[in-house]
Amino acid sequence: MTLPSPPRSPLLLTPGPLTTTGRTRAALGRDWGSRDPAFVALTTELRERLVALIDGAALDDGDAFVCVPMQGSGTFGVEATIGTLVPPDGKLLVAVNGAYGRRMVQIAQTMGRAVVAQVDPEEQPTDVAALEATLRADPAITHVAAVHCETTTGLLNPIEAIAEVVQRAGRRLLIDAMSAFGALPLSARTLRFDAVMASSNKCLEGVPGMAFTLARRSALQACAGQAHSLALDLHAQHERFEKDGQWRFTPPTHVVAAFVEALRQHDVEGGVAGRGARYRDNGQTLVDGMRRLGFRTLLPDAVQAPIIFTFHEPDDPAWSFTAFYDALAARGFAIYPGKLTEVATFRVGCIGALQRADLQAFVEAVAEVLAAQGLTQAA
Amino acid sequence: MTLPSPPRSPLLLTPGPLTTTGRTRAALGRDWGSRDPAFVALTTELRERLVALIDGAALDDGDAFVCVPMQGSGTFGVEATIGTLVPPDGKLLVAVNGAYGRRMVQIAQTMGRAVVAQVDPEEQPTDVAALEATLRADPAITHVAAVHCETTTGLLNPIEAIAEVVQRAGRRLLIDAMSAFGALPLSARTLRFDAVMASSNKCLEGVPGMAFTLARRSALQACAGQAHSLALDLHAQHERFEKDGQWRFTPPTHVVAAFVEALRQHDVEGGVAGRGARYRDNGQTLVDGMRRLGFRTLLPDAVQAPIIFTFHEPDDPAWSFTAFYDALAARGFAIYPGKLTEVATFRVGCIGALQRADLQAFVEAVAEVLAAQGLTQAA
Repeated sequence: MTLPSPPRSPLLLTPGPLTTTGRTRAALGRDWGSRDPAFVALTTELRERLVALIDGAALDDGDAFVCVPMQGSGTFGVEATIGTLVPPDGKLLVAVNGAYGRRMVQIAQTMGRAVVAQVDPEEQPTDVAALEATLRADPAITHVAAVHCETTTGLLNPIEAIAEVVQRAGRRLLIDAMSAFGALPLSARTLRFDAVMASSNKCLEGVPGMAFTLARRSALQACAGQAHSLALDLHAQHERFEKDGQWRFTPPTHVVAAFVEALRQHDVEGGVAGRGARYRDNGQTLVDGMRRLGFRTLLPDAVQAPIIFTFHEPDDPAWSFTAFYDALAARGFAIYPGKLTEVATFRVGCIGALQRADLQAFVEAVAEVLAAQGLTQAA
Repeated sequence: MTLPSPPRSPLLLTPGPLTTTGRTRAALGRDWGSRDPAFVALTTELRERLVALIDGAALDDGDAFVCVPMQGSGTFGVEATIGTLVPPDGKLLVAVNGAYGRRMVQIAQTMGRAVVAQVDPEEQPTDVAALEATLRADPAITHVAAVHCETTTGLLNPIEAIAEVVQRAGRRLLIDAMSAFGALPLSARTLRFDAVMASSNKCLEGVPGMAFTLARRSALQACAGQAHSLALDLHAQHERFEKDGQWRFTPPTHVVAAFVEALRQHDVEGGVAGRGARYRDNGQTLVDGMRRLGFRTLLPDAVQAPIIFTFHEPDDPAWSFTAFYDALAARGFAIYPGKLTEVATFRVGCIGALQRADLQAFVEAVAEVLAAQGLTQAA
């Protein structure tokens, strides 16, 4: 099913919003009454599918995970989770090695929650031993927040080791899995955490407009009245879903419908394993091709997630990111600027409705642009 | 241009999300890079069109209004506005005569702002003389918040008189115009206010997923660092739009594109005057038809906005709202439950991409359902 497309979209080689399938976009094409039973059923399907992705429906200890969708971008879901789950007299330790860790610190500071950061270099994974030492030294810390894949660089953090250390220390873990969720495994049966936050428009390949939190039911139920915000109160939001399956405030109905359609396709592709395998293949195609052209990745392969890749800009006076971006855009590819303060870089994603041939075509386009711009020595 | 529709939507006779045009839904059909110049241009068009709707681009006193879009539902925009514009040491007076006034009180309480309410009965407009007396008696009040059209009942509040009283008292006015904006006139050249809040999916006939605030630039600029929330910080959100035209956090790209398309159609229809005229005609068709069937409106015509109508449920043991709703849904019409605690009512909206013929068809469907359910005496 294809849409009567407005001007063709470029392929989005970004960390999101991403290229979606025609089927997902076709699911945007009808209006829904937000309190109509048909839409309530969609929302219920959405919540159940997301819980299933972390094996969270029924845990061995009798607890379970619940899915709480939230209007807005991923940051709205992260803020709602921190503001609701970390009590006003709690203290949050954030493992920071990029912009999204820093953002969680800023979120906690803005709402007046006590917060400390363990800051590691942006091209290195979280130092788990240091994290353990901090937890031992500061018994006031009640919660730890960590980023699964740091979109700033594309770095994969050792979430399993972090979860072990936090559990051993008897603290509670919140995982920002925004850019990893649905492509990298994360199971509530093997890792202990209280919440994981992600959004519709990354590896699950929906369109942007909503976030969601998968929260341990017992933890969430203890948080009535704790939130700093009415709109971003995860507990109140959950209560309404439990009461009658409806969103508390107007949901982005079209976005929800497209997300459900995207989740069905995720399932058909083989779930997290199938999605992850395609992205690994995409990423390998990309990085092999870019290295053949002389580009260097910021990260060593061992800590690189198959999500988004950071490349050093060529050390050449003829280089201009804007010119490079525009020339690729003219060839139908949108890339992403770097987000590092100290090193000149750009980023290329390998997620979304992309296949190996798309990444091959991208590498060919880069080669053309380099030649056209007199940048034959890429790096 | 028509979409390859998934199962046909019912006509949505609700306060939103609403029925949209095929052109608006077609604009949902492409993916956008959120940092791509083409999308930045869309966002700029959106912001400029919304400022123009209140004649806010250049005021006589040299000030101007700016448009700050916000991800999420209308409530997210209201909370961001209160949290950013009312300082921590300010005090808010809310004119309450329905659920949306009450919600503003709750928003302020949750974030710890001092707040008082003037509560009027739900079927009566705000008592402006009482409001003036309260302002005179309490000099600590810095801001007043009022609801233009109370969606709870469909009541039109005397926003001009409220604005005059607030200006005379030297306080600042925030207007929740959610369900009126774009159909009922509101001009920054004739009324004094600091902010007006609305959303994409009501009288402007976009799809749901974003709110916006039109704020007096001088007022907003004074509010750095005041917000209770990172995501809902209207000042920081505005700073980013001013810096490079981009959204601070991931925007709902498809929703934004559809909203721009909807705003273009609003303009073609004759702007606020044209849109308002169609809705008044729709509303008259609806209420005349329903009265012919014996239904009684909750509100007297003098305070009824042409947005959404509240009808008393028939006083008949055979009446069931659920059965009535389902029978209308089967005929392709979605109505809305009542929101009053003391009186049994239901609501029918006349906004969205609906014409007189749609409302006539609705009244015919109601007549059929009454007959089929043995409710020939409607009220």
